Amino acid sequence: MPKHSHREKILTEGLKVVHAHGFANASVRDIVRAAGVPQGSFTNHFESKEAFGLEVIELYRSRNAETIQQTLRNDALPPLQRLRAYIDAAKDRLNRDQMRNGCLYGNFTAEASDHSERIRQRLLEVFGEVRLALAYCLRAAVKAGELSPGLDCDEVAAFIVSSMQGANLLSKAERSTVPLERFKEILFTMVLRRTGSAEPLADCG
Amino acid sequence: MPKHSHREKILTEGLKVVHAHGFANASVRDIVRAAGVPQGSFTNHFESKEAFGLEVIELYRSRNAETIQQTLRNDALPPLQRLRAYIDAAKDRLNRDQMRNGCLYGNFTAEASDHSERIRQRLLEVFGEVRLALAYCLRAAVKAGELSPGLDCDEVAAFIVSSMQGANLLSKAERSTVPLERFKEILFTMVLRRTGSAEPLADCG
Repeated sequence: MPKHSHREKILTEGLKVVHAHGFANASVRDIVRAAGVPQGSFTNHFESKEAFGLEVIELYRSRNAETIQQTLRNDALPPLQRLRAYIDAAKDRLNRDQMRNGCLYGNFTAEASDHSERIRQRLLEVFGEVRLALAYCLRAAVKAGELSPGLDCDEVAAFIVSSMQGANLLSKAERSTVPLERFKEILFTMVLRRTGSAEPLADCG
Repeated sequence: MPKHSHREKILTEGLKVVHAHGFANASVRDIVRAAGVPQGSFTNHFESKEAFGLEVIELYRSRNAETIQQTLRNDALPPLQRLRAYIDAAKDRLNRDQMRNGCLYGNFTAEASDHSERIRQRLLEVFGEVRLALAYCLRAAVKAGELSPGLDCDEVAAFIVSSMQGANLLSKAERSTVPLERFKEILFTMVLRRTGSAEPLADCG
């Protein structure tokens, strides 16, 4: 196996190990074993476990960025439909691993943000990217008349980021997508109803 | 030091170590050092690290139970004031450690619920207790005319549990109470407005 592919293999398989067992629990030994490469490969490619952790976050982020392009930033679709698709994509991700792993960003925040300032700063940046994409989608919904001009898109976007993290966490605890589905239901029927109107959005689901 | 006080010391100081560094990162050595007791004390009092983890959750829960009695279940106060006090108590807790530690339940869920079925089951029970107390408070608010009878108190209570977990997590990432304050603001102005009325609650703050 050529050396550069060792690096890819360590990252791809290492992401799975970290996502399933947590960053602290994922030993270098577990990671190289999952990747099927010699232990020395790890230190050849990563100067520290922190450096490896940062690259794992990048790999996860690149996948999430694709989802964001296909949903929240997909101008071909009506804005609120994009928001629903983004939440449904999170549900699909939870389903893929039987709700065992939760969101990698949230797991890192819970366990590693106190230990590595670089990791914490990177997590803030990726949360910020998601928040901007959500605010972009909400603004489009306001512009399209799907939501009232009175909506504070930035604040609601930040609220969605944090509430979705919580819903992911409870889905992980319950091994069920119900917390994420409940979040979506309350978001669309109680938070995003048109300001100045008691009517919930007609087409929520 | 008598033996029974070693046990208390390990739990009290161990809770701080686990809360600050995560369960996986907290070694028995760190815990006994923080407690100022010999290493053998740990194995004398706890059959496993999992058993210790479960008792740490109990200690944290007993403190949270006091807060719940003084706020959500405190019939001497108007219901929505109790709910505000409960969220403010969470903010005070975040402030006490400069927003570094987050919520112990959330941290355990993120890092340990996949590894110990006993811990996961216990976390589900404690989340359930908080949810029941929130639903009790919301029902009292409906009865007192502070909220509309149309409110689905059980669903909104579950939504509050998960969204507060997310707000705690983002507060930990940002080292700021802003995410928790934003959650409170949106809860009181957008989720808990009287059903059938576009008016937000007048006295939110």
